[in-house]
Amino acid sequence: MKIDGIAYRSIWLDADGWSVRIFDQTKLPWQVEKLRLTDAAQAAHAIRSMQVRGAPLIGAVAAYGVALEMREHPGNLAPIAAMLGETRPTAINLRWALERMVAALAPLPEAARAAAAYAEAAAICDDDAETCRLIGQHGLPLLQDIATRKGRVNILTHCNAGWLATVDYGTALSPIYQAHDAGLDVHVWVDETRPRNQGAALTAFELGAHGIPHTVIADNAGGHLMQHGEVDIVIVGTDRVTRTGDVANKIGTYLKALAAADNAVPFWVALPHSTLDMRVRDGVAEIPIEERSGAEVTDLTGRTADGRIETIRVVAAGSGAANPAFDVTPARLVTGLITERGRAPATEEGIAGLYPEKV
Amino acid sequence: MKIDGIAYRSIWLDADGWSVRIFDQTKLPWQVEKLRLTDAAQAAHAIRSMQVRGAPLIGAVAAYGVALEMREHPGNLAPIAAMLGETRPTAINLRWALERMVAALAPLPEAARAAAAYAEAAAICDDDAETCRLIGQHGLPLLQDIATRKGRVNILTHCNAGWLATVDYGTALSPIYQAHDAGLDVHVWVDETRPRNQGAALTAFELGAHGIPHTVIADNAGGHLMQHGEVDIVIVGTDRVTRTGDVANKIGTYLKALAAADNAVPFWVALPHSTLDMRVRDGVAEIPIEERSGAEVTDLTGRTADGRIETIRVVAAGSGAANPAFDVTPARLVTGLITERGRAPATEEGIAGLYPEKV
Repeated sequence: MKIDGIAYRSIWLDADGWSVRIFDQTKLPWQVEKLRLTDAAQAAHAIRSMQVRGAPLIGAVAAYGVALEMREHPGNLAPIAAMLGETRPTAINLRWALERMVAALAPLPEAARAAAAYAEAAAICDDDAETCRLIGQHGLPLLQDIATRKGRVNILTHCNAGWLATVDYGTALSPIYQAHDAGLDVHVWVDETRPRNQGAALTAFELGAHGIPHTVIADNAGGHLMQHGEVDIVIVGTDRVTRTGDVANKIGTYLKALAAADNAVPFWVALPHSTLDMRVRDGVAEIPIEERSGAEVTDLTGRTADGRIETIRVVAAGSGAANPAFDVTPARLVTGLITERGRAPATEEGIAGLYPEKV
Repeated sequence: MKIDGIAYRSIWLDADGWSVRIFDQTKLPWQVEKLRLTDAAQAAHAIRSMQVRGAPLIGAVAAYGVALEMREHPGNLAPIAAMLGETRPTAINLRWALERMVAALAPLPEAARAAAAYAEAAAICDDDAETCRLIGQHGLPLLQDIATRKGRVNILTHCNAGWLATVDYGTALSPIYQAHDAGLDVHVWVDETRPRNQGAALTAFELGAHGIPHTVIADNAGGHLMQHGEVDIVIVGTDRVTRTGDVANKIGTYLKALAAADNAVPFWVALPHSTLDMRVRDGVAEIPIEERSGAEVTDLTGRTADGRIETIRVVAAGSGAANPAFDVTPARLVTGLITERGRAPATEEGIAGLYPEKV
C-alpha cells in the first residue's frame, strides 16, 4: 500500500540484501520513520515495544529475526526461536511463523541455514500479502451486498487490521480497500482503540492515505451508533481463533460484538490461516491475555498544535491502571469468518470445512 | 466531601452572600480552581463548557443561574429559564430544576423573586445532598451482601457519578463511599470514560482523595474483566430515566450493560427523583442525545512529566471525529434502580411503586 504515493510493504529487505526494514509504528502517524533491524535482539525489541504490531506482521518480523540470527549463529536455532516466541503471548501467528522457520531450518546443515532462513522469511511475507489480498476478495461480496441494498456502506472496525498490521493489504481493511477501489460508497467508523489508539493513529492514517471516508469515534460510541442504524457491518481482525471459532482480538472487541448481536448487525472476523490455533477449544478459558503496562492507560503521546510531540498524563495523580491488551469474543457472537479460502461460520464445522488439513 | 481535608460541596454561596462558587471541573485533577459566577450568562457558560457537569449538579447550577438573574432582572424569569434550559439537552435534571424555580417564582411579585430564588436554589442543593446520602444508604446493602459472600467487593463504574457530579456524596459513588466508611473491602474499576475522561480525571481523583482502592481501566476492558469474574457489580449514574426504566447515561454505558448481562453481573443505576422523566417511554427513540465537538475525541489535555499542562492531538492529521455524548441502555439490561426512596426494578411498575405521585 502507499504512503505519499510510494508503494510499501510493512516489512522489507534492505538494499544491502540482509538487514530488515520496518516502520516504527509507535511514531506513526506523526513521523514516518523506517527502522533497520540487524539482529534478532532488535527484532525481538521491535515486537515487544510494538514498533511492529498486528498478528501477521509480528510473525513476519519474528521470521526475519531468525534469519538475522542464522547469518552469524546458525547453531542457535532453537534458543532464538524460543526467545522470539516469548516477546508477546496472545497472537498465535508468532508461534506459527517460528514453528515454520524451525521446521524448514532444523533439518539443514548449519552452513545452509542462513540462505534458507531468508528464503523462508520472504516466503512467509509473500504468503501473507497474497493471503490478505484474497481475504479482501472474499470479504468484498459482503460489502457489495449492502451497497446494492442501501447505497452507502457504513463499516465499523476496531484497532488496526490494515496493511500496517500485516505485510500488505490488511485483514479487516482488505475488503474495504477493494470495495473502495471498486467504486463502492464506503465509510468507516474507526474505533480509536484505547489505550494505544491504533485506530486513531494507524487505521485513520491508512484510510486517509487511501482516500477512504472515515470518522474516528471513542470506543464507547459504537453501541449507540448501532442502536440508531448507523453501522451496517462490523469487520475486525484477530490475534487468535480457536478451533471452535472463539476470537481473541484487541481489548474491547467483545463489547462491539455484544452490541452487534443486540442490534442484528453482522459481525465478521477477517483472518489468514496463520491465525488459527487448532490446539485451543475454549478461547475465554485458554487463550493467554497479555497484561501490558498501566502507563499505556495513564499516559498518551501526541502532537501539540505547534508541532511538538508530547506525552501527557490523563489519570489523576496517584491512581494506578490495569491494562489487559486483548479480550475473547465467544464464537456465538461472530457472524462468520473471512479467510483467504472463503467465508465460513465461526464454528468447528465451518473452520474444518475451510481447512480440512488442519483438523 | 473533602479535598485536602477540607469539606466542600460542588457548589456553594460565596461569602458575599450572593455570588456562586464552583470548581472548574475542566481543570481537575491537575488544578483545584474555584470559579465565581456572578450572572446567569456565566452559569450557562459553566454548564455548556462543562466546568460543571453531572446531571444533578447542572440542575443546581441552573437554579442558581436563575437566582443571579433575579437579583437584577426579576422580570426576566421565563426567558432566562429558557436560555439556561438550552445549555445541554440530555440530562433532565436541568429542566426539572428550572421548572421548579419557575413554579416557585412566577407567582411572586418581582420584588420578592430574588430572595425566593436564592432560597429555592439552596433548597434544591440541600435536597440533592440529602437525596444522594439516602441513595448511598439504599445502595449499601447490595455491597454488604457481596462482601458477606465474597469478602472484597469489586465494583465497576463508568464516567463520574460522584460528589462532583452532584451537590454532595454522588449517586453511583455514594454507596461506595458509605461501604468504605463502614469498613467494607471495596475496590473500584474506574472506566476512564473517553472522550472527556471523567473517570480517569474526576472519579479517580475523588476516590483517591477518600482513600478508596481503585484502578483505572480503558473503557474497552470491562467486558474482559467481567468474563473473568473480576467484577461483582456495576453501578452507574444517569442523566435521564424514562417511565419504563430506560437509562440515558454517558456514552459507553450501554456496552457495559450488555457485558454485565452476558456475564450475569448485576447492573444497577443510581438516581435521584429529579432524574426521572415520566414524559418519555422509549429512551432509545425519544431521549435527545447531545452531539459534542469532535475535538473532544481528537485532542486531549493532561500534564507532562515536568508539570506543564499540554493539549495534544492523538488522531491522524486530516481525520475527523464524531462525538455522541450519551447513549441509552434499555431497561431490560438494568438489574434495578437505586433511589433515595429505596431500590426497585427498572420497570414502569417498579418506578411507579417508588414514586406513585409521579404516575
